Amino acid sequence: MTIADLAMPRPAPGCVLLRMEACGICHSDLFIAGMEKPPVLPLVLGHEGIGKVEGLGEDVTSVAVGDRVGVTFLASSCGACEWCRTGRERYCPRQLNSGYTSPGVMAGFVSVPAQCLVRVPKEMSAVEAAPMCCAGWTAYRAVQEAAARPGATIAIFGMGGLGHLAVQFARHAGLRVAAVDVSEAKLALARGVGAEITVMAENAARTLQKEYGGMDAAVVVTGSTAAAGQALRSLKRCGTAVLVGMAHGPAELPIVDTVLKGITIRGSFLGTRQDLGEVLHLAAAGIVRPHVETHPLTDAPALFERLGRGEIAGRAVISF
Amino acid sequence: MTIADLAMPRPAPGCVLLRMEACGICHSDLFIAGMEKPPVLPLVLGHEGIGKVEGLGEDVTSVAVGDRVGVTFLASSCGACEWCRTGRERYCPRQLNSGYTSPGVMAGFVSVPAQCLVRVPKEMSAVEAAPMCCAGWTAYRAVQEAAARPGATIAIFGMGGLGHLAVQFARHAGLRVAAVDVSEAKLALARGVGAEITVMAENAARTLQKEYGGMDAAVVVTGSTAAAGQALRSLKRCGTAVLVGMAHGPAELPIVDTVLKGITIRGSFLGTRQDLGEVLHLAAAGIVRPHVETHPLTDAPALFERLGRGEIAGRAVISF
Amino acid sequence: MTIADLAMPRPAPGCVLLRMEACGICHSDLFIAGMEKPPVLPLVLGHEGIGKVEGLGEDVTSVAVGDRVGVTFLASSCGACEWCRTGRERYCPRQLNSGYTSPGVMAGFVSVPAQCLVRVPKEMSAVEAAPMCCAGWTAYRAVQEAAARPGATIAIFGMGGLGHLAVQFARHAGLRVAAVDVSEAKLALARGVGAEITVMAENAARTLQKEYGGMDAAVVVTGSTAAAGQALRSLKRCGTAVLVGMAHGPAELPIVDTVLKGITIRGSFLGTRQDLGEVLHLAAAGIVRPHVETHPLTDAPALFERLGRGEIAGRAVISF
Amino acid sequence: MTIADLAMPRPAPGCVLLRMEACGICHSDLFIAGMEKPPVLPLVLGHEGIGKVEGLGEDVTSVAVGDRVGVTFLASSCGACEWCRTGRERYCPRQLNSGYTSPGVMAGFVSVPAQCLVRVPKEMSAVEAAPMCCAGWTAYRAVQEAAARPGATIAIFGMGGLGHLAVQFARHAGLRVAAVDVSEAKLALARGVGAEITVMAENAARTLQKEYGGMDAAVVVTGSTAAAGQALRSLKRCGTAVLVGMAHGPAELPIVDTVLKGITIRGSFLGTRQDLGEVLHLAAAGIVRPHVETHPLTDAPALFERLGRGEIAGRAVISF
Repeated sequence: MTIADLAMPRPAPGCVLLRMEACGICHSDLFIAGMEKPPVLPLVLGHEGIGKVEGLGEDVTSVAVGDRVGVTFLASSCGACEWCRTGRERYCPRQLNSGYTSPGVMAGFVSVPAQCLVRVPKEMSAVEAAPMCCAGWTAYRAVQEAAARPGATIAIFGMGGLGHLAVQFARHAGLRVAAVDVSEAKLALARGVGAEITVMAENAARTLQKEYGGMDAAVVVTGSTAAAGQALRSLKRCGTAVLVGMAHGPAELPIVDTVLKGITIRGSFLGTRQDLGEVLHLAAAGIVRPHVETHPLTDAPALFERLGRGEIAGRAVISF
Repeated sequence: MTIADLAMPRPAPGCVLLRMEACGICHSDLFIAGMEKPPVLPLVLGHEGIGKVEGLGEDVTSVAVGDRVGVTFLASSCGACEWCRTGRERYCPRQLNSGYTSPGVMAGFVSVPAQCLVRVPKEMSAVEAAPMCCAGWTAYRAVQEAAARPGATIAIFGMGGLGHLAVQFARHAGLRVAAVDVSEAKLALARGVGAEITVMAENAARTLQKEYGGMDAAVVVTGSTAAAGQALRSLKRCGTAVLVGMAHGPAELPIVDTVLKGITIRGSFLGTRQDLGEVLHLAAAGIVRPHVETHPLTDAPALFERLGRGEIAGRAVISF
Repeated sequence: MTIADLAMPRPAPGCVLLRMEACGICHSDLFIAGMEKPPVLPLVLGHEGIGKVEGLGEDVTSVAVGDRVGVTFLASSCGACEWCRTGRERYCPRQLNSGYTSPGVMAGFVSVPAQCLVRVPKEMSAVEAAPMCCAGWTAYRAVQEAAARPGATIAIFGMGGLGHLAVQFARHAGLRVAAVDVSEAKLALARGVGAEITVMAENAARTLQKEYGGMDAAVVVTGSTAAAGQALRSLKRCGTAVLVGMAHGPAELPIVDTVLKGITIRGSFLGTRQDLGEVLHLAAAGIVRPHVETHPLTDAPALFERLGRGEIAGRAVISF
Repeated sequence: MTIADLAMPRPAPGCVLLRMEACGICHSDLFIAGMEKPPVLPLVLGHEGIGKVEGLGEDVTSVAVGDRVGVTFLASSCGACEWCRTGRERYCPRQLNSGYTSPGVMAGFVSVPAQCLVRVPKEMSAVEAAPMCCAGWTAYRAVQEAAARPGATIAIFGMGGLGHLAVQFARHAGLRVAAVDVSEAKLALARGVGAEITVMAENAARTLQKEYGGMDAAVVVTGSTAAAGQALRSLKRCGTAVLVGMAHGPAELPIVDTVLKGITIRGSFLGTRQDLGEVLHLAAAGIVRPHVETHPLTDAPALFERLGRGEIAGRAVISF
């Protein structure tokens, strides 16, 4: 992973030229950078960014020069499959993903598809808006997939970029939140943003069962099979676990318990187009606030190393 | 496992004396009989039976002498917990189960709690009604938990007592059914009751993906971890797998696929009180027909052996 | 309507003797008192009360002498119909209602069915717990029937006993609340408990459409056909109106608008057994606080007159 | 209303030139023709048609010359509002409607927006496919909005173009269907396509309540306020009425009954993009069959008169 000088991009048909203002650093960037065969080389990383439109490719009518927009991991979708037709474009089999199969936005200038760009409220700083475009968006949808009623209990596993926002979305929905992590510092951050209960990851399930009677819901935003297993075991009867974090190996699915307790397990990837607008609205209204540290691009390699060691609380964002 | 002469039971308070007419033989009987420490000894097995009320214990007002009733695995529930209060008494932590923690009904006369008995339409034969009280009930709920729209595809894994009824419930709901089993004879039975597609279990997922684009839903009514794994892999994006069969070991939960495809996995145990009435209605109306072989009680040991070897197509029912 | 000395009641089988501590005054009491043919005469009014168990009739095992319990309008339900079997006992056709077809609890001592009594947390005062048993319970369910997502807008029509609690339940669920009433004083109360928008009833629909783009949901807790009409017209496309207040005449159902905008209208009566426990929990935790004025029983006739004139903000509660 | 010679259209940008094969005649055509101020004059009617693509305007990539496509009432939607973003484009406030605010297709050649065209299976005749694009589509969605479980009862009010298809969709979903109409001939048609119960419209509610205990659901596909009122009164507790037919005057909304019975009333307009594909699939598979009479364009004025008098059973379709 290096910082390189690339040619100034020109917007292809359907694309726009963006001058980037900020871009967050995400675990998925690490996941992709670690792949044996990335789909494109050289690959520009970055998929939660805020930029200004500086030029339009052919056929672009949905945005104009001067607009301020957000870029997400969903660069484009086909618009015609059964998932696109039903507001679930995040599962489109022909989607392109920023910083993976479509150009990433951790760069000064980029050309990206216009299709999925979202307008960003003017009053938001780029540094605070950027984490909403992946961490916030994904966490928001995951909390909703838990389908828990106000007053219900929810455990959030992993207090990083997604987790500390998931706590806030859950609180806003009237849920009682238990935060789980391996780091005491991150649990302190969780308490600061509204977690009522904080539990160290080891033995989390046992603690949540014994002291709180189990959870109505659990959301796993860390890519750990151990966390997924703990989440399943932390649920009450009829509870729901939402899996978001990508863990390489499979977890154990305890069939007898799943059947006898009526447990639901659901994967959730990104969010819907409607979610994205709502997330930005909640952040602009100050209802949800990302915990951010800001850095110049030159810090990126060091930030990725810290991210890999689990040393970043909240989100690290590159400011251009 | 033996056939024994027991003392004539007397109905305790809240219980009724039943003269049994028929009782089906279920895989759960085998599961329980195989436990190292059954909760009660000696244990009378049997939890899908039809009988006539011959006597009432104290405080019983919900049924009368002469009524014909069905007995299910849910002998009683507490009535006060959050699951009982919300129509999900099947997950009550204090439930008693017929033929397990409450007396079974594979016997000439039994005393059972009155609480969960269900009235059986007079026009139904006991032998055809019995399988509805466990196999039919459980299969009906499982198909509903799949939440598939009419016209959607559903794969049913396991063509035994539950499976051949699940096929019929799914067809009645307008679903297109793929039946999966290891036995060609059972797949033939599945075709006879409405399965459009039949697939041998080995490589079922690959076949269903390749030839049919994956399934919208899958229901696993056999207690096999391999079947659970095949079911998960047979799903389309946003598909739902419902697990019903108890398999001793855990299955593998493929986290990345579950997340990227938005898969839902849900355990389902028995059914609701409302379901039970609906199942009996559908059977009385001839919309669903169990495939039944009838035997005297003396055949029970041999039937359990055949059941263990997977040699019973449909349901074996003891007629008293 | 008078205050009278009645004989000390004795608990019939299935009933308990309560020494009442508090009882709220509800619009339904007025509705019932105004009926041409009440079902029972003389009729003791009152259906949201808190009392202590002083004696048990035969067959009562669910509560014990000394327990502190709440009484709601749902005195008993049949337990066997399709609504009772599915957690919707509030629609049981054979239900009995406190202060209507079953004895009311606006009295020093009463005998009431044990079936639907709810345990009340010890730390709650009787005067604050009483309004939760009808106003709070009904408002809580109504807000849930609106099925609005966190961040959505909801208009509450009527800022009396139910309305000022509905505002708080909606806020707790992350909704943005518009309060509507004919009284400026009641709108001030609404602002005090979290309403973001307050609108005078006249032209409410026009204001909510013009200034806020319409509401995602509306809940009508006042018994006014005009309010119901305004509520329907205040909705955005795909919005939901929940009707709770009983208005004698029918409202107008605008068919073309309902179709073209995909509007949902839903009646909601009381709440579920599960809701009741949740409501008391939220109140005990201080998340929802009723606005209460306390009076001795001798004030009851005067209070009913003030209630009829719309002069009570929040809830008036009789303390025994 | 006349048959006229118009200039051969040329496809504008985003539009395609279609050579029409068939177009159904719908009550909405009458509704629009009867408006005091139609939005465009002269107005070509027609919004359920099948045609072949003969030419492409600029920027059209979603279809190709030679494709066979269906046209619906939803000519285009904005793609950006909250309804478009959530698969509910049928409620887009900026939609254009064929034969109303966008050119109709009851003509030999037309230029229509490419956006919402649907591919039609080759094996379907144009005359059988046409009614699926409005009557079938709308009826399919309406039955789904009723959200009734297999085995539940549903009354369909109005046995015209939509109604006779609604009966078939409901049957396919496992529902028990009561058909209601003023015409005995149409009720006979309903029996022929699977209605279990047929009831004359006068006193329909009373009959359905008295003889069948009320309906779980009702769908009103006729534009009659009387039918809407009957539908509401025909429901069981917790039943759902879906309103589809446009009636000029408002119906009566019985507030007390709606509240005490927990009734839901929901408007439904057209269907979703996903529905349209499913409807065509069900028709191509022969699961649903429209009852069609075929006519040349010259018959159109006479057909509209017969339609206005309620004399068309099923659907009249113009074949070009």
